[in-house]
Amino acid sequence: MKLTTYTDFGLRALMYLATLPRGELTSVARVSALYDVSRNHMVKVINQLAREGYVEALRGKNGGIRLARAPRDINAGKVIRLLEHNLRGIDCGSPACPLVPACRLRDALAEAMEAFLQVMEGYTLADLVDNRKELMVIFSTLEADRRPGEPAA
Amino acid sequence: MKLTTYTDFGLRALMYLATLPRGELTSVARVSALYDVSRNHMVKVINQLAREGYVEALRGKNGGIRLARAPRDINAGKVIRLLEHNLRGIDCGSPACPLVPACRLRDALAEAMEAFLQVMEGYTLADLVDNRKELMVIFSTLEADRRPGEPAA
Repeated sequence: MKLTTYTDFGLRALMYLATLPRGELTSVARVSALYDVSRNHMVKVINQLAREGYVEALRGKNGGIRLARAPRDINAGKVIRLLEHNLRGIDCGSPACPLVPACRLRDALAEAMEAFLQVMEGYTLADLVDNRKELMVIFSTLEADRRPGEPAA
Repeated sequence: MKLTTYTDFGLRALMYLATLPRGELTSVARVSALYDVSRNHMVKVINQLAREGYVEALRGKNGGIRLARAPRDINAGKVIRLLEHNLRGIDCGSPACPLVPACRLRDALAEAMEAFLQVMEGYTLADLVDNRKELMVIFSTLEADRRPGEPAA
């Protein structure tokens, strides 16, 4: 049982943005490269995060993206509720399940999923990067490795 | 966030088996047809449930499958722990995530997933089919619809 890659990429992107010095801009291309994921996928989730006020996207030559709120004001559970399309734990529609009108499993899964989300709502983005220095070392090493001709960011 | 179809089919199969009169045999083909799922997929999960002692599979001409335990002795959460390959809520390996050595998100998700499983462990298969008569009507109607030339099972 996993989050969709969409939500997963969204959370990873927010964690990276939260490790940057306040106000510093980065780019979707850079975030995608760091995590070695498709830029197209990352663009979609970053766009949603921007629409919802979590990420600020500045256009133009000196544009880029950065967090629009402090990490302590971004709730991990709420981000999951926002990004994850199916929070029922099951897909009753493919194939269409005949139990739908009378399914107790669906009710049990909904209750269990709520417990999952409540635990996640106990965490803010600040909690997820409270080892910020350690994460910065990982990201810097990775950027240096991936761009051997350039100095590490 | 969803269970895999493998676990989903396993739970649906157990629910159907639990509605049958005690000891009555059915077949994988029939369970697959009822839920309109691939027989191959259903075979795999039923085989695992048989290996783990949840389902009894009798070979031969008069063979078939049935529950090997009473529904009250089958714990829904334990079945999910058994069938679900990834209970971490995230796939840190595809693509390989550089955060792995220092990831607080992974820890938070593990805690949240445990809360999910603990709720599911509060349910037995008997709880999931406590509306057995209602479910039997659904299954009978479905079998009658799918085999118009034959009497409903």
